[in-house]
Amino acid sequence: MHDVQKERDLRNIQIDRVGVRGVSYPVILLDKDNRTQNTIASISMSVMLPREFRGTHMSRFIETLEEFRGRVSPANLDIFTKRLCEKLNSSESHVKFEFPYYFRKKAPVSGIESFSKCDVNLEAVHEDGKKFDMIIGLSLNVQTLCPCSKEISQFGAHNQRALVSLKVRCSGLVWFEELIDMIESAASSPLFTLLKREDEKFVTELAYQNPRFVEDVVRELALRLDDEGRILWYKINVTSSESIHNHDAFAEIERDKR
Amino acid sequence: MHDVQKERDLRNIQIDRVGVRGVSYPVILLDKDNRTQNTIASISMSVMLPREFRGTHMSRFIETLEEFRGRVSPANLDIFTKRLCEKLNSSESHVKFEFPYYFRKKAPVSGIESFSKCDVNLEAVHEDGKKFDMIIGLSLNVQTLCPCSKEISQFGAHNQRALVSLKVRCSGLVWFEELIDMIESAASSPLFTLLKREDEKFVTELAYQNPRFVEDVVRELALRLDDEGRILWYKINVTSSESIHNHDAFAEIERDKR
Amino acid sequence: MHDVQKERDLRNIQIDRVGVRGVSYPVILLDKDNRTQNTIASISMSVMLPREFRGTHMSRFIETLEEFRGRVSPANLDIFTKRLCEKLNSSESHVKFEFPYYFRKKAPVSGIESFSKCDVNLEAVHEDGKKFDMIIGLSLNVQTLCPCSKEISQFGAHNQRALVSLKVRCSGLVWFEELIDMIESAASSPLFTLLKREDEKFVTELAYQNPRFVEDVVRELALRLDDEGRILWYKINVTSSESIHNHDAFAEIERDKR
Amino acid sequence: MHDVQKERDLRNIQIDRVGVRGVSYPVILLDKDNRTQNTIASISMSVMLPREFRGTHMSRFIETLEEFRGRVSPANLDIFTKRLCEKLNSSESHVKFEFPYYFRKKAPVSGIESFSKCDVNLEAVHEDGKKFDMIIGLSLNVQTLCPCSKEISQFGAHNQRALVSLKVRCSGLVWFEELIDMIESAASSPLFTLLKREDEKFVTELAYQNPRFVEDVVRELALRLDDEGRILWYKINVTSSESIHNHDAFAEIERDKR
Repeated sequence: MHDVQKERDLRNIQIDRVGVRGVSYPVILLDKDNRTQNTIASISMSVMLPREFRGTHMSRFIETLEEFRGRVSPANLDIFTKRLCEKLNSSESHVKFEFPYYFRKKAPVSGIESFSKCDVNLEAVHEDGKKFDMIIGLSLNVQTLCPCSKEISQFGAHNQRALVSLKVRCSGLVWFEELIDMIESAASSPLFTLLKREDEKFVTELAYQNPRFVEDVVRELALRLDDEGRILWYKINVTSSESIHNHDAFAEIERDKR
Repeated sequence: MHDVQKERDLRNIQIDRVGVRGVSYPVILLDKDNRTQNTIASISMSVMLPREFRGTHMSRFIETLEEFRGRVSPANLDIFTKRLCEKLNSSESHVKFEFPYYFRKKAPVSGIESFSKCDVNLEAVHEDGKKFDMIIGLSLNVQTLCPCSKEISQFGAHNQRALVSLKVRCSGLVWFEELIDMIESAASSPLFTLLKREDEKFVTELAYQNPRFVEDVVRELALRLDDEGRILWYKINVTSSESIHNHDAFAEIERDKR
Repeated sequence: MHDVQKERDLRNIQIDRVGVRGVSYPVILLDKDNRTQNTIASISMSVMLPREFRGTHMSRFIETLEEFRGRVSPANLDIFTKRLCEKLNSSESHVKFEFPYYFRKKAPVSGIESFSKCDVNLEAVHEDGKKFDMIIGLSLNVQTLCPCSKEISQFGAHNQRALVSLKVRCSGLVWFEELIDMIESAASSPLFTLLKREDEKFVTELAYQNPRFVEDVVRELALRLDDEGRILWYKINVTSSESIHNHDAFAEIERDKR
Repeated sequence: MHDVQKERDLRNIQIDRVGVRGVSYPVILLDKDNRTQNTIASISMSVMLPREFRGTHMSRFIETLEEFRGRVSPANLDIFTKRLCEKLNSSESHVKFEFPYYFRKKAPVSGIESFSKCDVNLEAVHEDGKKFDMIIGLSLNVQTLCPCSKEISQFGAHNQRALVSLKVRCSGLVWFEELIDMIESAASSPLFTLLKREDEKFVTELAYQNPRFVEDVVRELALRLDDEGRILWYKINVTSSESIHNHDAFAEIERDKR
């Protein structure tokens, strides 16, 4: 059977990335307490295609995923991306795994527990002869309460959900839980899935006492990331679903500490 | 050229609806002040297919849209759906037009103007020998401020955007602007695209003085719709993006006054 | 602490449904081979609110989910919805669980295995004094190849992904795998996550030999559902992402066999 | 009334971008034939916030949009971004306008006309003392037919919609229509909204005679962009909704010709 992909290409153009995207697959994560978490990932995998080949062999991406039996974590993506290069005869590969990550959270007064969710994305690049590069991304909803609205109004202050999206490059292992703590402490208040009345009172008053613009959240989080030695580079986006507008407010900071 | 669609079908099964969906097309609306508004619709058009035919002729849906030169309004969908039946040799046709609708809104104190948006969807059914049926749907974001959070907390109260989705069947013409007014008066506060500081103070205090659960908004809107003689049937959904949770609260009422 | 929700409401309006929506939670399913599958659900839970109460107690929905420790299946939603009524003092409750479901599939020639995905949604209603009602919904992508394009063209035929969305009410247990088989056999070809070259040849030729309009897929599936005694009611939607158009073709049939 | 945003900030952190996002607004475009086109944009506008200020003044972004009365085009974004800097007292501003763009297209044999759609996004940056920077982005669906599937199969070949997303930096004016032509000529076939049977035959055979991997489309388009002197930089992404898989294939090339 003829291998069209292997045909010699005469257009003389290297392709930066070629591969598969939107692969929905069950994956198994290792979490902080050394336990596994079953989750579901949307996966993108690609390689660089040299100028002389017409196409890549797409099925080998899925075969590699099967070889790893769905076990992925920030700790094994270097091996994963290297294996992609071997299987697909390329010197450069890129992967992206996006998945929800669940963790138990206690309500602040009643102590009652439930699951909270954040969205994680792991991006990794292997390039022959270069240092392995990985970005850990984590997105989490928090509450922001507007300092201006509080200051100028006789009572009340508008508040709303805000999505904090953080991407980091690290020198050592950083747990998702550590990033979550940094994000939540930068906001007016964390969110909770399950709150009894005494908890709702606490959260309402906490937010009112910690008014934060998107500008404040992005700066507070930047301060925490600047202080943390294992973080080498970060990019923060805070987008707030303003409860008085039909559009969002946002703020962004990117910083390379290296 | 053989017409496969016209082949006799032996499976003996009538198809309720067959047609096209996700047609993105510029449309021209007539608004309250007799002016036209250019907008963009996502369109679905279908007919009933009798048991004896293998397929419908999909291109005729687009041809009908072209015949009307993109001019659609609640006032001409009866002619439109009837024309679909003629063109496609069917006794029953259904259309759905979904589009954003823009209107000017003044800020409550400064009076400064900007555009606000709602999402309209018009659903219409023609069936030979039956009365023409049309549902006008309108979705609009508003603000809700939690009565419980206000009551139990020393200061502040959580509030957020809530989406109100209203569908109505009417006996006479009901303008989008009338539905918008009913929706906004049922909420803690309307939203605005452009607010100066004096307006933000006003909106913050207005919401604090009008705390509303999703249960309150849905009931307040139901009261207004019950009072309006031209409304024969309605369905309301209010979904609030709770600022203390990562999930939404919702309430729904459907009522047939006929 | 005052319970605002328990206040007497004077507006005299019953609310059909009030509850939470968009709750993202890990759930544990029981599958055909008696094994559990960990997946992630988007959950909606609501109750009817009698006219005399101002509000419902939203936290109790999440507490009920916690009581079941995330274990849900078509087999226990009757108990789940009944428990919601008890906890929330209502005579009527509704739940919806939407989650991806993964199953292993062998490539047709090489026999190589990988995961395929469908989207399941379970809707259940408990109403005091009435029979428990449950709808099992399952959405799956397949391939459709156009019979008209094949017939009129000298070579080739346009083909594409089509989404088949099936909802059923059953008299006994129907496995997701049985619904998947019925859907895939009604299409031009099933989809596969992992295909080697010999498999791709097989799938290409299979589709070419089984040309199907959306009208054909919906009727073929209806025939299979008509033949299956355990199916009491069904609703089918087939939506095909036409590869020659920027919009979709669709067909729908709903039938009550009772 | 106290201006909280103007407060001196002591955290000593400059914010790269702060502003509004998801502003849905009607806009008026100038098209190739010197006519205006009414469309609807999702708009993002931001400025750099110096370390000494606590916040920006969000309402001024909307005021600037109102000043321009919704008239935007690649030709006036330099003035628009400069005006944002003046209004918001910043040395750097960024805007992004995303909107659908409609154009008439003739069916290839019958010549019958209908609207086709592409999605445009314009990104522009003003930075005091630097050259104005603008990226024109345009996304368009086309058809790809798999060369491998055609080669190895006795008859037929799988084909599907593929989204081509192109971003360019130019030295002179480049019309959307020119980019559309380059994209469509790189694919197996363009898409059409309205095709009669003779057109469907033509398009089916055209695609079969022009089999293209995503690798081929991205290279063919790169060749055309390399040849066009006005294009200084480009980034191409081609993502194909494989009709035999539940996931997509993609290819990407970025090139700076400067």
